[in-house]
Amino acid sequence: MLCSRAAWRPSLSGAPHAEWGWSLHPWASQNSFRIEYDTFGELKVPSDKYYGAQTVRSTMNFKIGGVTERMPIPVIKAFGILKRAAAEVNQDYGLDPKIASAIMKAADEVAEGKLNDHFPLVVWQTGSGTQTNMNVNEVISNRAIEMLGGELGSKKPVHPNDHVNKSQSSNDTFPTAMHIAAAMEVHEVLLPGLQKLHDALEAKSKEFAHVIKIGRTHTQDAVPLTLGQEFSGYVQQLKYAMTRVKAAMPRIYELAAGGTAVGTGLNTRIGFAEKVAAKVAALTGLPFVTAPNKFEALAAHDALVELSGAMNTTACSLMKIANDIRFLGSGPRSGLGELILPENEPGSSIMPGKVNPTQCEAMTMVAAQVMGNHVAVTVGGSNGHFELNVFKPMMIKNVLHSARLLGDASVSFTENCVVGIQANKERIDKLMNESLMLVTALNPHIGYDKAAKIAKTAHKKGSTLKATAVELGYLTAEQFDEWVKPQDMLGPK
Amino acid sequence: MLCSRAAWRPSLSGAPHAEWGWSLHPWASQNSFRIEYDTFGELKVPSDKYYGAQTVRSTMNFKIGGVTERMPIPVIKAFGILKRAAAEVNQDYGLDPKIASAIMKAADEVAEGKLNDHFPLVVWQTGSGTQTNMNVNEVISNRAIEMLGGELGSKKPVHPNDHVNKSQSSNDTFPTAMHIAAAMEVHEVLLPGLQKLHDALEAKSKEFAHVIKIGRTHTQDAVPLTLGQEFSGYVQQLKYAMTRVKAAMPRIYELAAGGTAVGTGLNTRIGFAEKVAAKVAALTGLPFVTAPNKFEALAAHDALVELSGAMNTTACSLMKIANDIRFLGSGPRSGLGELILPENEPGSSIMPGKVNPTQCEAMTMVAAQVMGNHVAVTVGGSNGHFELNVFKPMMIKNVLHSARLLGDASVSFTENCVVGIQANKERIDKLMNESLMLVTALNPHIGYDKAAKIAKTAHKKGSTLKATAVELGYLTAEQFDEWVKPQDMLGPK
Amino acid sequence: MLCSRAAWRPSLSGAPHAEWGWSLHPWASQNSFRIEYDTFGELKVPSDKYYGAQTVRSTMNFKIGGVTERMPIPVIKAFGILKRAAAEVNQDYGLDPKIASAIMKAADEVAEGKLNDHFPLVVWQTGSGTQTNMNVNEVISNRAIEMLGGELGSKKPVHPNDHVNKSQSSNDTFPTAMHIAAAMEVHEVLLPGLQKLHDALEAKSKEFAHVIKIGRTHTQDAVPLTLGQEFSGYVQQLKYAMTRVKAAMPRIYELAAGGTAVGTGLNTRIGFAEKVAAKVAALTGLPFVTAPNKFEALAAHDALVELSGAMNTTACSLMKIANDIRFLGSGPRSGLGELILPENEPGSSIMPGKVNPTQCEAMTMVAAQVMGNHVAVTVGGSNGHFELNVFKPMMIKNVLHSARLLGDASVSFTENCVVGIQANKERIDKLMNESLMLVTALNPHIGYDKAAKIAKTAHKKGSTLKATAVELGYLTAEQFDEWVKPQDMLGPK
Amino acid sequence: MLCSRAAWRPSLSGAPHAEWGWSLHPWASQNSFRIEYDTFGELKVPSDKYYGAQTVRSTMNFKIGGVTERMPIPVIKAFGILKRAAAEVNQDYGLDPKIASAIMKAADEVAEGKLNDHFPLVVWQTGSGTQTNMNVNEVISNRAIEMLGGELGSKKPVHPNDHVNKSQSSNDTFPTAMHIAAAMEVHEVLLPGLQKLHDALEAKSKEFAHVIKIGRTHTQDAVPLTLGQEFSGYVQQLKYAMTRVKAAMPRIYELAAGGTAVGTGLNTRIGFAEKVAAKVAALTGLPFVTAPNKFEALAAHDALVELSGAMNTTACSLMKIANDIRFLGSGPRSGLGELILPENEPGSSIMPGKVNPTQCEAMTMVAAQVMGNHVAVTVGGSNGHFELNVFKPMMIKNVLHSARLLGDASVSFTENCVVGIQANKERIDKLMNESLMLVTALNPHIGYDKAAKIAKTAHKKGSTLKATAVELGYLTAEQFDEWVKPQDMLGPK
Repeated sequence: MLCSRAAWRPSLSGAPHAEWGWSLHPWASQNSFRIEYDTFGELKVPSDKYYGAQTVRSTMNFKIGGVTERMPIPVIKAFGILKRAAAEVNQDYGLDPKIASAIMKAADEVAEGKLNDHFPLVVWQTGSGTQTNMNVNEVISNRAIEMLGGELGSKKPVHPNDHVNKSQSSNDTFPTAMHIAAAMEVHEVLLPGLQKLHDALEAKSKEFAHVIKIGRTHTQDAVPLTLGQEFSGYVQQLKYAMTRVKAAMPRIYELAAGGTAVGTGLNTRIGFAEKVAAKVAALTGLPFVTAPNKFEALAAHDALVELSGAMNTTACSLMKIANDIRFLGSGPRSGLGELILPENEPGSSIMPGKVNPTQCEAMTMVAAQVMGNHVAVTVGGSNGHFELNVFKPMMIKNVLHSARLLGDASVSFTENCVVGIQANKERIDKLMNESLMLVTALNPHIGYDKAAKIAKTAHKKGSTLKATAVELGYLTAEQFDEWVKPQDMLGPK
Repeated sequence: MLCSRAAWRPSLSGAPHAEWGWSLHPWASQNSFRIEYDTFGELKVPSDKYYGAQTVRSTMNFKIGGVTERMPIPVIKAFGILKRAAAEVNQDYGLDPKIASAIMKAADEVAEGKLNDHFPLVVWQTGSGTQTNMNVNEVISNRAIEMLGGELGSKKPVHPNDHVNKSQSSNDTFPTAMHIAAAMEVHEVLLPGLQKLHDALEAKSKEFAHVIKIGRTHTQDAVPLTLGQEFSGYVQQLKYAMTRVKAAMPRIYELAAGGTAVGTGLNTRIGFAEKVAAKVAALTGLPFVTAPNKFEALAAHDALVELSGAMNTTACSLMKIANDIRFLGSGPRSGLGELILPENEPGSSIMPGKVNPTQCEAMTMVAAQVMGNHVAVTVGGSNGHFELNVFKPMMIKNVLHSARLLGDASVSFTENCVVGIQANKERIDKLMNESLMLVTALNPHIGYDKAAKIAKTAHKKGSTLKATAVELGYLTAEQFDEWVKPQDMLGPK
Repeated sequence: MLCSRAAWRPSLSGAPHAEWGWSLHPWASQNSFRIEYDTFGELKVPSDKYYGAQTVRSTMNFKIGGVTERMPIPVIKAFGILKRAAAEVNQDYGLDPKIASAIMKAADEVAEGKLNDHFPLVVWQTGSGTQTNMNVNEVISNRAIEMLGGELGSKKPVHPNDHVNKSQSSNDTFPTAMHIAAAMEVHEVLLPGLQKLHDALEAKSKEFAHVIKIGRTHTQDAVPLTLGQEFSGYVQQLKYAMTRVKAAMPRIYELAAGGTAVGTGLNTRIGFAEKVAAKVAALTGLPFVTAPNKFEALAAHDALVELSGAMNTTACSLMKIANDIRFLGSGPRSGLGELILPENEPGSSIMPGKVNPTQCEAMTMVAAQVMGNHVAVTVGGSNGHFELNVFKPMMIKNVLHSARLLGDASVSFTENCVVGIQANKERIDKLMNESLMLVTALNPHIGYDKAAKIAKTAHKKGSTLKATAVELGYLTAEQFDEWVKPQDMLGPK
Repeated sequence: MLCSRAAWRPSLSGAPHAEWGWSLHPWASQNSFRIEYDTFGELKVPSDKYYGAQTVRSTMNFKIGGVTERMPIPVIKAFGILKRAAAEVNQDYGLDPKIASAIMKAADEVAEGKLNDHFPLVVWQTGSGTQTNMNVNEVISNRAIEMLGGELGSKKPVHPNDHVNKSQSSNDTFPTAMHIAAAMEVHEVLLPGLQKLHDALEAKSKEFAHVIKIGRTHTQDAVPLTLGQEFSGYVQQLKYAMTRVKAAMPRIYELAAGGTAVGTGLNTRIGFAEKVAAKVAALTGLPFVTAPNKFEALAAHDALVELSGAMNTTACSLMKIANDIRFLGSGPRSGLGELILPENEPGSSIMPGKVNPTQCEAMTMVAAQVMGNHVAVTVGGSNGHFELNVFKPMMIKNVLHSARLLGDASVSFTENCVVGIQANKERIDKLMNESLMLVTALNPHIGYDKAAKIAKTAHKKGSTLKATAVELGYLTAEQFDEWVKPQDMLGPK
């Protein structure tokens, strides 16, 4: 037996952790190192990495969760944008143009995702994100040094603190990067995904405009509506989902940069905050401004709780829609069967015709996750103290997770499900015609009591309204056909 | 021993339930009844109540939770407003003016809270709120009958369904009442409470504008700011709390009335929806409009999830602020002691000088409750099916609960705590002057290394920066006083 | 127009609040008062109330939420039990037997719910519940004074602090009352409710043991099982729900009494803690013990978070079961229609035969509420500081709310729904016989490919498996009947 | 400018997604492929991968979230164990030993983590985890084929369905793998982490047994206790955390295997379920058994909600402890300063002596995440329908996430914080001696009133109790020293 029991027995060795990821941990064996120092002593830094001692020390002190827990790349990219903007502004205020230029180039590479492998830190670090800010400063510094022909780790001629972090603190840069990352993910992934789904649902709503079907309230048979009307409710939900997300953005567009350590802006220059926000706006094409109150911008992250709340509402909408679609598409024989959903994967080898509504399932799982993420964001957002909220990395991780999942799932759901939905008209007509509540239409002609008698008798005998009505002698078949018209029950008169 | 063990032993008798409330259950013994009928048989209705058979039946079928679980009165009031508006519009469409007028008068009494005792139903009923809609119809019908000299329970000349509920369905009236109730509670309780707290915090921020104090990040000593700046962050949070709540209101102002059973508006008249919304707007002074899509308005309650989300964000803000204030006011000797909080209750008979920050505690408990309510609303909002969400009573109960608690707690917190907060200037100055991080100001004059040496030595010896600096011979006492000025560390330069 | 707009316009008057409740606020006008004093000055106490100055002061300082927010009666009853037990033990340690006896009698009345009207305080007070402890002390003291012929408010001969609260602190008595109340509610309401539902489901599972029906996975048609098997899953869920709740109880049975102010037991006597726990156990018949670590018992309420977690899991079970039952009972014509649910209320006057699964709706609303309450409890439980968690009243309110709702809803759901569920055998058989996945049984006889051809053809043409199989010439009608037997597909072989 | 604006402008291109991960997506460009087929047509499979067509198709249909969203490796390992066990049992029931042996060897490699790169699927797939089950079947099949000298993708001589999945369905294997993975993570990571933290706190509790300090209730000064007593509360919380997790395990040890598609066990053999559970128990050393009710085991995942609930309670405990430690360690000058926390990273270059409690911050962020994960699990657990819960991958992802984070964070917190905590005795003594509440000890000697006078005067003047007492002439300095002894205030008498 190759597989010894011991391999699976409880143990505290580091081994199990390695199995979570798909690439090596930074603290795993490396062939080549350079020695760097910080105030706590010497540390080995992998030769092929731009990061420095503070990054390595963080990997040693925070062995929590493995590579899937790394700081989300959108935060790293956002830092690239911010550091570039800050370098430009610092140059305006006197930073050596040679140094500023090198920082800008290196920061651009970070923003473009070219240096992603140099950001090994997990979110479960200091709650201010300081270590990631230093990771960014070290990477940009070393990459800039390299561009200028210097020696990695020498901090010359580009110092991570004095130059890259100039006029900045982790306490204002990290929340700035959070907002940039959130805004970009919203614009690049979330809103486009919701728009795509909205458009597909709207197209279906129009396509199904004349398909009259039975309505269901309390999950029970009710009066009719069109399938297009039913879908129009979903369209409205998606439309408002976008409205809600957009309504949260003005607070996200506010940047903390310029607040430095506690919000006062100590060690910055007057105008720095405004100029950095303007540069970031120019670089991203999004309407970022400097936060009107930096104390709030560092100490609270209500703006992220708010955005998360908008996504939580969106999750409710999508849960509802996906649930409806899978129930309306249930069958093929023993379900509601009104919708025919696209078949995307081989069904069971045993049960031909079985379509599992897998896109609905992915969507509803995403919705549940977003609701959970929202609680994590809420708990973090409520626990700031004094001048600094220290749940920053956890909060932005969850916000970005929700945005990405909702956006991606909307696209997947649209492409692999919604666009291919067909109305099962035969089934819809059958249910409609069998429905007992059409009797409502007879009230003005034969009175409520006789109508009720028809319906109750039909229900008891399992027969149709028409046959029962004729059998009871209340009207003729022709009269029934004339008076009972679902198409006249679709709106006010 | 009067109190036998048996009284507390586990039992399933109905007795324990009675103990939850402060007044009698409707199903408790009554002296006098009238007999009413519904299609299920005869029922005893208390003689002194306006409600009828369907209400009584609900109290028999839903013995869940006792009187504290009754449908919130704001929903009942909202129904009064809605029924009045509908009667007016129905009169326009031909309803007998005598009947319409009686309905209007009775509905006004409901809206004014005069008939609160006639609404015994709990929220844990049908998920559409149908039974409460019928409770309202029955009460208004009987009260109108009484006004017109008829016999209670006779349904003549004012029928609960045919007249009071005319052109309406539970499925559109209940969500309409939900929105009216939520909007009114927001405007009457929530927003005024938040505004009051905002104003009080703003006044304190101005009052404390020149009190320089040590900042705290990571709960650790940091560079200084003014107490006014610190409070300005809270002011901003409150300002945005109101912004967020208001941003959610446009969807709340949309009324489902006119959608009837499934959203199509079957059995209403063209224009009914718009006219009812306009009447409700006129009656309440709030900008209600008819919902642009009635299918969404019945089947989803995203608007309530959204509003609950805005309150959830507000809860985070208030948790943060109340936590800060109690920690800053901790002491009197062994805490941070920077704030002096008003004493509102007798302190412990043992420990004079002890002030328990009880208003902060009430506020933070409220915040936790609102976060929990939000999850309940979220779960309910995500579980609508087809043409009707059937978590309506639970959702509105939680939304109203959150609005009321936040509003009331804000007022209580303001009146009993915030307005009376004093800065403990002596303590603040002492901490400020002892602070090691003021050494930062020496960097430009003696360099970072010497400054660090001063700080580390002072920390080690537990002495002051000034004494240490002079002792180390780096500068004179006069120079120290000239260079180390906290008042110059409060903003960018 | 009787109903002026002004009545509904936003206002900050106290008026709207009064409308939430069904009885008067304690601060509302009263006819007759006595004057009492505390260290803050004189206060008017209603003549007909046993409570005193500290209670009145709390009603003035905490106008949050109205009467529905009052301290739950089970907490008051639990305090009655505790105060009685403490008086007995204090007598053992030397308290004047006359005083002790009067306290015991008065405490018994509190425990029996006879003095419920004397506990007006809301949960949104001090987070330690001190004010409710004082409310209890005042009521018992005054009632005991009355029994002994003294003057209300004189504190003689029975002092609220010196005698009723002897050897106690709010910090240990309130958590003790929390645990007593939670344990009693679990035993009196929650577990009996779950047991009742379990038994009813088990009876149905046996009743339906031979009803073979189509299974559904992914909400789609799948291979068969019996309706009894399906219900057996629900039975198992209920069985485990009780197991889970019971598993949480050992920590609930631990009482904080004896820890006094910070857990050290200062000002108590050695043995007091153990004796009080034993008395409470004797009075309630529940196995209470003294908490092994009083510091944990005051500073954390993990035991309540744990119990709430067990109820949260129960809520998931009940949500699932109630959802299944309403979907299986959906119809009457256009749903799944396999179950016939009892009709409890008049259906719509328009749609005879429509049964709204209202008990399922109440149950699922309760489940959502319990999930929300759990988050509130979690947030409160995580925010204790140092020697005292000050989210106590909020936490116990939510725990009791969940226990009560789950217990009551289980009883209501059982009595008004489960016991009356019938299998719609005709419909079940029809769906079973039409099902395409029965083709699976042909695999061993004609091979997978031909079986698949049959199924696909039948699906396409909308015909039966049998007709298609015969038409395709793969087998005879007799062979089909012999080979395709759902009753052989119900277990392993 | 190297970094064009376009790179950051909103776009729907696939590009942004690639940036989330650290390795290539499976759908990214590959150099070499083989062609495989499924019933939907031909697909390119990377030549160097063991997975097959169904895996590739899932990567095409579910582009949601990127590599960090892949099925957690513990689930893959658990599947390896399960497939090995099933192969052994299938051999007992007649499976060709050559095939069985090859499956076992390949499954062992999966269990050992050797084939992790062959499992590219994300959790946002079908809610039953079918695609991951097929991924496992394909990898084991192809690896076994390779071992036996066959051709990858030929399904000969080892078929993924007929042999690897024999007697199994996704519907029972995936929940089985969920339980195996959860149990192993609990035993390998969660419980060892909690035990380690428990032990370290217990050691500190003993170390600090004689350090008398001021207590704090309501965050305010209170009567004294020892630092060891304070820590003993944390020890108790950790002890119970482990008790709670273990209490949830019996339901986790129940395996669904043998239930196949709907819980009936169709297409398995009598005894298969029991034998598989026994094999898994033997392989893992954990007491797995077959689930007594397979319908519950497939349709509900209450056991995971329960386990998540235990972790949620643990999160509350850890949040409380970490919060306490950071506040007690706050300073160095302006905080409470009673604890000296280890310095792990370079402090700010400006503020020497500043120790950021970063381990506390990581721990509290983890706690918030676990609370959020719990809500996601709860929502998923409540939404099962009929015979199958289809939130499986999402649920297990969150459960494993919580277990891993809590376990890892406990180890990190222990090693990098708890073991190095020192009591700042000088500060503790100072606060203790200055405390006003020690006056309590004078009550028996000079009476409450004089004691209160002393305390109030001392508070007002900011002087010591002793000085004030002597100054007021109530006692001598010697008497004060004799009567006021904090060491006598630590327990009952």
